[in-house]
Amino acid sequence: MKKLINEPGTVLDDALAGIAAAHPDLLAVDTVHRVITRAAAPGPGKVTLVSGGGSGHEPLHGGFVGTGMLDAACPGEVFTSPVPGQMLAAAKAVDTGAGTLFVVKNYTGDVLNFEMAAELAAEDGLLVASVLVDDDVAVRDSTWTAGRRGTGGTVFVEKIAGALAERGAPLAEVADVAGRVNAATRSFAVALTACTAPAAGKPGFALPEDEIEVGVGIHGEPGRRREKLRPAREIVADMMAAVLADRPLTAGDDVLVMVNGLGGTPLLELYVVYREVAALLAGRGVRIAGNLVGNYVTSLDMAGASISVCKVTDDLLALWRAPVHTAALRWGV
Amino acid sequence: MKKLINEPGTVLDDALAGIAAAHPDLLAVDTVHRVITRAAAPGPGKVTLVSGGGSGHEPLHGGFVGTGMLDAACPGEVFTSPVPGQMLAAAKAVDTGAGTLFVVKNYTGDVLNFEMAAELAAEDGLLVASVLVDDDVAVRDSTWTAGRRGTGGTVFVEKIAGALAERGAPLAEVADVAGRVNAATRSFAVALTACTAPAAGKPGFALPEDEIEVGVGIHGEPGRRREKLRPAREIVADMMAAVLADRPLTAGDDVLVMVNGLGGTPLLELYVVYREVAALLAGRGVRIAGNLVGNYVTSLDMAGASISVCKVTDDLLALWRAPVHTAALRWGV
Repeated sequence: MKKLINEPGTVLDDALAGIAAAHPDLLAVDTVHRVITRAAAPGPGKVTLVSGGGSGHEPLHGGFVGTGMLDAACPGEVFTSPVPGQMLAAAKAVDTGAGTLFVVKNYTGDVLNFEMAAELAAEDGLLVASVLVDDDVAVRDSTWTAGRRGTGGTVFVEKIAGALAERGAPLAEVADVAGRVNAATRSFAVALTACTAPAAGKPGFALPEDEIEVGVGIHGEPGRRREKLRPAREIVADMMAAVLADRPLTAGDDVLVMVNGLGGTPLLELYVVYREVAALLAGRGVRIAGNLVGNYVTSLDMAGASISVCKVTDDLLALWRAPVHTAALRWGV
Repeated sequence: MKKLINEPGTVLDDALAGIAAAHPDLLAVDTVHRVITRAAAPGPGKVTLVSGGGSGHEPLHGGFVGTGMLDAACPGEVFTSPVPGQMLAAAKAVDTGAGTLFVVKNYTGDVLNFEMAAELAAEDGLLVASVLVDDDVAVRDSTWTAGRRGTGGTVFVEKIAGALAERGAPLAEVADVAGRVNAATRSFAVALTACTAPAAGKPGFALPEDEIEVGVGIHGEPGRRREKLRPAREIVADMMAAVLADRPLTAGDDVLVMVNGLGGTPLLELYVVYREVAALLAGRGVRIAGNLVGNYVTSLDMAGASISVCKVTDDLLALWRAPVHTAALRWGV
């Protein structure tokens, strides 16, 4: 295993110290509880958004803390759910009394721990709601997950719900829009290589030199099948067919598209993929009203890409376009 | 070779089509000449900045075209200089009569072709100046380069000179500030793995499983030595020692720091590296006045990182902080 780390046991704490050092005006890091918050406390009455999950998916979630998006993130060890106490500490750190929305990717550990955190928060008098993100159409009831996995769509949920919270909307409305975004979003990923978790020291699975994993999860969970590497155009056509079979689109629809690198894929290739996605949607008369091309929800050093498509109405699109200032997404400010 | 491409021969054109599709409001792509310009023409009297070089380093340079940075970029094939006609087409596409600055990374092919393009431009009555970026302290007179290589420091040069041009400064001043930034910047890179160019189909060099290349170039050119992988703290100490030996800093200095991923390195690790850089500079009383942590000047899928340090005066810092709106860097707008 080759990694730029000090030792496997300190990766998370070392990275958190790096995040704190890199973004002092934007973020504050509670190294005891392992909670990343905005540097500035939320204003009175603001509904707050808290997310978290295993590390190794950076910039998710810490890179999405800031104005117009999350108020706090709690990172677990690599590919390991944060613990309920951490989630509770995050909620308390940013609580204004107006309530907190937990944004939870659908992995069994995350779900159970966020549920327990919500109970603990309620006992402490905090108002908490949760949204479960389960956008990955590749498989149902896979490794680590009952139902569908939560992956790239999390970015759309956090951005759009975060923008609504920033406008001063009440918790029920923020939770509702988060659910709407999740319901409107579908994702699908392919892996060209496995990733290597620092504590494991070796790749999470073995993939022959000429094969790809179709429908892979963000921890390297198995997908639908393995197949020979083919031209990007054909791979994208299959990925989009899976997405559109699950959530059909019709001519005139507006969508957000994210072509997301899994960590080890050059941006040059992501643009090749985006070109195919754009051509395919244009051919169906679907308009891409906003997009992201880059590394947003990664799997350490895995080579591969995911495609996320979110059908948006005008109100969701306006929230997507609202100003955001985080380490990983920034516009309008 | 596993890549999300259609075929090696069409990678650049396919990616350019993807860039055009992804950023229609920001960028325009001349697919005939392979020139990326801002979507909006420069205002009258604006000095324009043109850069270019081989592809495979994305987001450099196309990702830095936009308000406050470059006016145009001309990408060559992967790891291959663009040709003079392409550079000339880029200069002409954005010419306002006020002059154009060519930002040239110091690689022999790039230098010769930009020199020829400057001659052709002069024959056509265009006013052209050039700045040569040669920030990499690792080696002198290496593969592909006489003198030092131009690498990560290019981002600082393009941002700061771009901001000055945006303010309406004349060509001589823009060229002067670009030269000052280059003179104030030093970079050093390590590779954990080789990268694979699409046309080559196999890694550019072989590196044993427990060794790193210290002082590597952005095409995988050899560095100073190979050594066993060590903790990030020790690797960073050596990288910073090389940088600071060449350009000493003293307590009270302000610097910009970029911790740059070479394409295959997780952001988690880049933050581990940044933490070490920040601690080392803090220990010397040097203030980091601005930073970037992420993939900015890559080498396709190479795992590894570079560190760039630029000593800034107040005027350079103000230009660094000025608004920028490109695909890869955006703030203040």
